[in-house]
Amino acid sequence: MSVKPLGDRVVIKKVEVQEKTKSGIVLPGTAKEEPQIAEVVAIGAGITNDEKKKDEIKVGDKVIFSKYAGTEIKVDGEEYTIVKLADVLAVVQ
Amino acid sequence: MSVKPLGDRVVIKKVEVQEKTKSGIVLPGTAKEEPQIAEVVAIGAGITNDEKKKDEIKVGDKVIFSKYAGTEIKVDGEEYTIVKLADVLAVVQ
Amino acid sequence: MSVKPLGDRVVIKKVEVQEKTKSGIVLPGTAKEEPQIAEVVAIGAGITNDEKKKDEIKVGDKVIFSKYAGTEIKVDGEEYTIVKLADVLAVVQ
Amino acid sequence: MSVKPLGDRVVIKKVEVQEKTKSGIVLPGTAKEEPQIAEVVAIGAGITNDEKKKDEIKVGDKVIFSKYAGTEIKVDGEEYTIVKLADVLAVVQ
Amino acid sequence: MSVKPLGDRVVIKKVEVQEKTKSGIVLPGTAKEEPQIAEVVAIGAGITNDEKKKDEIKVGDKVIFSKYAGTEIKVDGEEYTIVKLADVLAVVQ
Amino acid sequence: MSVKPLGDRVVIKKVEVQEKTKSGIVLPGTAKEEPQIAEVVAIGAGITNDEKKKDEIKVGDKVIFSKYAGTEIKVDGEEYTIVKLADVLAVVQ
Amino acid sequence: MSVKPLGDRVVIKKVEVQEKTKSGIVLPGTAKEEPQIAEVVAIGAGITNDEKKKDEIKVGDKVIFSKYAGTEIKVDGEEYTIVKLADVLAVVQ
Repeated sequence: MSVKPLGDRVVIKKVEVQEKTKSGIVLPGTAKEEPQIAEVVAIGAGITNDEKKKDEIKVGDKVIFSKYAGTEIKVDGEEYTIVKLADVLAVVQ
Repeated sequence: MSVKPLGDRVVIKKVEVQEKTKSGIVLPGTAKEEPQIAEVVAIGAGITNDEKKKDEIKVGDKVIFSKYAGTEIKVDGEEYTIVKLADVLAVVQ
Repeated sequence: MSVKPLGDRVVIKKVEVQEKTKSGIVLPGTAKEEPQIAEVVAIGAGITNDEKKKDEIKVGDKVIFSKYAGTEIKVDGEEYTIVKLADVLAVVQ
Repeated sequence: MSVKPLGDRVVIKKVEVQEKTKSGIVLPGTAKEEPQIAEVVAIGAGITNDEKKKDEIKVGDKVIFSKYAGTEIKVDGEEYTIVKLADVLAVVQ
Repeated sequence: MSVKPLGDRVVIKKVEVQEKTKSGIVLPGTAKEEPQIAEVVAIGAGITNDEKKKDEIKVGDKVIFSKYAGTEIKVDGEEYTIVKLADVLAVVQ
Repeated sequence: MSVKPLGDRVVIKKVEVQEKTKSGIVLPGTAKEEPQIAEVVAIGAGITNDEKKKDEIKVGDKVIFSKYAGTEIKVDGEEYTIVKLADVLAVVQ
Repeated sequence: MSVKPLGDRVVIKKVEVQEKTKSGIVLPGTAKEEPQIAEVVAIGAGITNDEKKKDEIKVGDKVIFSKYAGTEIKVDGEEYTIVKLADVLAVVQ
């Protein structure tokens, strides 16, 4: 993957709604701050070089993040989102 | 439970209103910032690794939190809320 | 008492207006930020474990706090308010 | 005096307008942030225990403070104001 | 002079517009944040006790400050302004 | 290049939309905070002298930054943008 | 020059638009935050006494700063602007 996020940012790829339902996770549209599921594809050096943050998240993790956070980009036809670690709410295990 | 909150967040499960009344705790609807009762189901590493915060809260605690705080998610048909520790007002003992 | 406030919060119980008048303390309704008198019933660990804050306030103290601060709760039929120490203006001795 | 201010707060008692004029100090009503003269009656531990702040102000000092700062209270029929030290502009000597 | 400013404040006395013009300094009314010239008459301990700030300004200095900063007071018939050091833009030498 | 950015700023030159498409990177106009691709042409000393920041970015890097960040300038007929490092989201490798 | 800026401020003198065009630097009016070119005529002690800031800028430097930053003054018939170092975007070399 060819995008290296800077600072405390991560690059994530959204998981399709259908796939979420199969894995038993549903995110209701009535939530005030609508969350989304995504897979982590790249992690910034501000996280990997920080003793406290580096164990929080790793490439391949499925994460819940706020729908309105981040910036969407498209690389080689694939859509990704760049978000700050602080906007990642949880890792789905 | 399969959701690991990041940073200073906790995952909580709301306690039904009926159950609250039985245990003698009533939260009046006239409160300016309407509080709610919930049970803690997961605690982020930003809390468990912090000397000052780790004794404040543990899994299984009943807590009072602000109704408008946090993000609601649904896992395997069960609804949960992810909130920051700072939005948890008190532990009901 | 069964509510343990988290962090720098305290649980207080408002003193009736009549009682305030008897003790010679009257809080006029014309004040911009209307204060209230209350008794401290529980103190968070963020205060009792802090060298600078722990001597400021103790259970049983009568305190003046801002009327619009805090969250109201009801435990076993009794009403309480959870406020941050920073919203407690003074101790009435 | 029976009110102990918390933190960086002081309890002050406003000086009457007539008295201010006699002492040669007049505070014009056209000032954007209308100041007032008051006498310090109690000082919080956040000030008396701070090396840098403790020499700034003492009980009995006449001070200039912003009219819109603080919370007004009445104790035994006397009106007082609780303000933060940061809202006290100057000591009149 | 009988007013001791607290913290990082200074007491200044505005210089008349006519005097400013004579000394070759004109402050146009079209400036977005209209500046003014004043003479420093008292300096707070927060400045005189600070290694970095104490050499920035001294009593008698002519200074440029923002017109809308500070609180105006009148002492023995003379008008003064209390401003924070951060609102003093420059010393005119 | 004759512009040295101050502090944590970098000078970047936007890459044409056509060129972006050829390299397989498309930035959709529907993104809430529309990102752009640019090449880094100068880096401020606040970055190169900082142990944590100096390895994040180098001259020649292609970067993604927020469209609305920064100040546009024109030097010798060429347009550049001065942005803060915090507004650079990622390096495209 | 007779104006000594305080703190992290610098005094600058705007360069005429014509002169800017001759030196090959044009600042388009369509820029969101319209920048301007100026020459540094005085530097505050908050910059010259700071190890990290003192090498960023020197008297005589041509700088780019935001048009809406700073306070304009006139000294001996010449117009100057007092700006904070943080509002100086770059040095033109």
